[in-house]
Amino acid sequence: MKKTFLCCLVGLLCSLCIGVAHAQEVVAAPENICSPEVAADGSVTFRLFAPKATSVTVGGDFEGDGSPMTLNPETGIWSYTTTPLESELYNYHFVIDNTYRIFDPSNAHRLRNVMHHYDYFIIPGPRGDLYSVQDVPHGSISEVWYPCPTLDTERRMLIYTPAGYADSDKHYPVLYLLHGMGGDEEAWTALGRASQIMDNLIAQGKAEEMIVVMPNGCTKHQAAPAKGSEGMWQPYWSGSMDGTTEKAFTDVMNYVEKHFRTINDKAHRAICGLSMGGFHTLQISKTYPDSFDYVGLFSAAIYRGEKSVDIYADLEGGLARQFATPPALYWIAIGSDDFLYEDNVKFRALLDKHGYPYIYRESDGEHKWDNWRLYLSEFAQMIFR
Amino acid sequence: MKKTFLCCLVGLLCSLCIGVAHAQEVVAAPENICSPEVAADGSVTFRLFAPKATSVTVGGDFEGDGSPMTLNPETGIWSYTTTPLESELYNYHFVIDNTYRIFDPSNAHRLRNVMHHYDYFIIPGPRGDLYSVQDVPHGSISEVWYPCPTLDTERRMLIYTPAGYADSDKHYPVLYLLHGMGGDEEAWTALGRASQIMDNLIAQGKAEEMIVVMPNGCTKHQAAPAKGSEGMWQPYWSGSMDGTTEKAFTDVMNYVEKHFRTINDKAHRAICGLSMGGFHTLQISKTYPDSFDYVGLFSAAIYRGEKSVDIYADLEGGLARQFATPPALYWIAIGSDDFLYEDNVKFRALLDKHGYPYIYRESDGEHKWDNWRLYLSEFAQMIFR
Repeated sequence: MKKTFLCCLVGLLCSLCIGVAHAQEVVAAPENICSPEVAADGSVTFRLFAPKATSVTVGGDFEGDGSPMTLNPETGIWSYTTTPLESELYNYHFVIDNTYRIFDPSNAHRLRNVMHHYDYFIIPGPRGDLYSVQDVPHGSISEVWYPCPTLDTERRMLIYTPAGYADSDKHYPVLYLLHGMGGDEEAWTALGRASQIMDNLIAQGKAEEMIVVMPNGCTKHQAAPAKGSEGMWQPYWSGSMDGTTEKAFTDVMNYVEKHFRTINDKAHRAICGLSMGGFHTLQISKTYPDSFDYVGLFSAAIYRGEKSVDIYADLEGGLARQFATPPALYWIAIGSDDFLYEDNVKFRALLDKHGYPYIYRESDGEHKWDNWRLYLSEFAQMIFR
Repeated sequence: MKKTFLCCLVGLLCSLCIGVAHAQEVVAAPENICSPEVAADGSVTFRLFAPKATSVTVGGDFEGDGSPMTLNPETGIWSYTTTPLESELYNYHFVIDNTYRIFDPSNAHRLRNVMHHYDYFIIPGPRGDLYSVQDVPHGSISEVWYPCPTLDTERRMLIYTPAGYADSDKHYPVLYLLHGMGGDEEAWTALGRASQIMDNLIAQGKAEEMIVVMPNGCTKHQAAPAKGSEGMWQPYWSGSMDGTTEKAFTDVMNYVEKHFRTINDKAHRAICGLSMGGFHTLQISKTYPDSFDYVGLFSAAIYRGEKSVDIYADLEGGLARQFATPPALYWIAIGSDDFLYEDNVKFRALLDKHGYPYIYRESDGEHKWDNWRLYLSEFAQMIFR
């Protein structure tokens, strides 16, 4: 069943139409354009039918961002082929006449990152295969609403249960997986590929079976944009670094431990998060020092909380209580070009000063999802075993 | 908490960035553009910053499709205001210079219909409120994989459980809700607003609490595009009218009745579907004549199955077995301008010939989602009571 290459199926003409009175693309593309096409060496060819354009470039988070495409005047199709790319998930877009940014009409696969949507593709290989749905047993995702008495509201979260959960009476360890600023409860399943990473690692025997809980870490909102009763608000760089996320976290845990077959002790709870979620991870794990044996700070925004907040105030005292009985793993990961790199250097110096044990992982790159997918893939293999 | 108007929140500038190296829109729009803006009378104003454009039009599934927008040369913003629109969910897009179709950079809310994505908005009122998340108790959606021994594979479906399900021991009736050609297991929760409709009707006391099961009715695929191990195939007008969906339907029911607290008798099972899903509904309900007391054909593609398929062959004999003990409700709904209208006239004549009881509902309009949302809203109020 597995196909490692993007596949362009020619739409079947059919007498049944599903119904939206959609216009065709104004510049109607031939139906058999394949874009993006991933070659065996990892190079990617983009194609766009735009006979009226005077220039087309392709941009994305890969080498060659902004490269000019070449027109075949006989077909009206512009194309560009990258150098071989490393195995990863990449986004891209086209720019026509140096003015109009458009999506690839030949690719229906898009992801939203905060307020922007992106076309994306995956290069097979070590990372790309881990981030793709494979022919292995699949876990389930549940979108649930839970009572949050701390904030006097109901809130939404996503919960991954591993393959076999529904057919067993087993109890499972739990990983709490936290998003960053501008993200929401859907960020880790969309951009973060959490379901695919967990399914694939578990199937390979590289990670234990576990429940993964993805709450919404911005207490200004109940849920992702348009998913709560606040309506269709525009996503923005929303976040909460005012102590509310940490205080309301007990409501998340109470719901999960009541409604799912969890193992409710420190040895069977892990918590990790990216950026603002790394900060939340630090704060939550020290606020509830007997709760988490595995702690993962991914590009953590360590010193960015509001100064006046009580639970943030005594960082050293909190860490002293947490490390009185150290977690089995305190893992700090960051990219060498991350804008939060120096903050993490400073934090590690603090841990070193007190002799608190931790493991440090430095990768290449910046404050981006390629690193956070990598960190989840690595962290998930180190916990509960 | 409820906001009935689309709300444009100015993005908060912040020192934390979430990480994708996304370009801004090439023509960088001012941050405070509100588009679409829904006024109290239901008129909608669209705005687009495009100072280099020579023309911009706005299109969508509302009156005024293709209307030219007007440029304010001082701001570079094009705008257009519709006449008051009826309460409904609408899609739209812009066309620049009569050539390039683009999305609204001020609106992050999009839906996919087969291979096309659309910006959308909702006009408050009788229908729009029902299709929006309200401040009421919310059910959960579970994305599950189930074994399908009939097709020797695993397949994906979405299951709605009503608010309170997780905190009760109650058993519930089940509605099987089937999509049309080109759709998949996600169509009814995305375009069909099934979660919102069920949450709101149940909260208003207009529908019974029920489980809603949304399987994938195209047996050529395990799951929606990119959600199964077939990878990132391009969506097309995929469908199955070859008997396989009906034969494999027992696997759907077996999984649901084993893993959810269902009531397993005819009086507590309903089935309905749109277009191809209406055809599947007809065939499944007559193939398993003692299974469903509530049957809903929404714009059903009644005479479009492959002629050679055994279970389709004896339509009159099958209906005779089904109507020997008639279902409590056999509901046929279609729009007066639907291209399948005459097929439904022919089918009703057949039922009339034999005196089989049914209820007929004719609405305005075509073979489109506005009718299917309406039909679900009405059908859900008539079942299990």
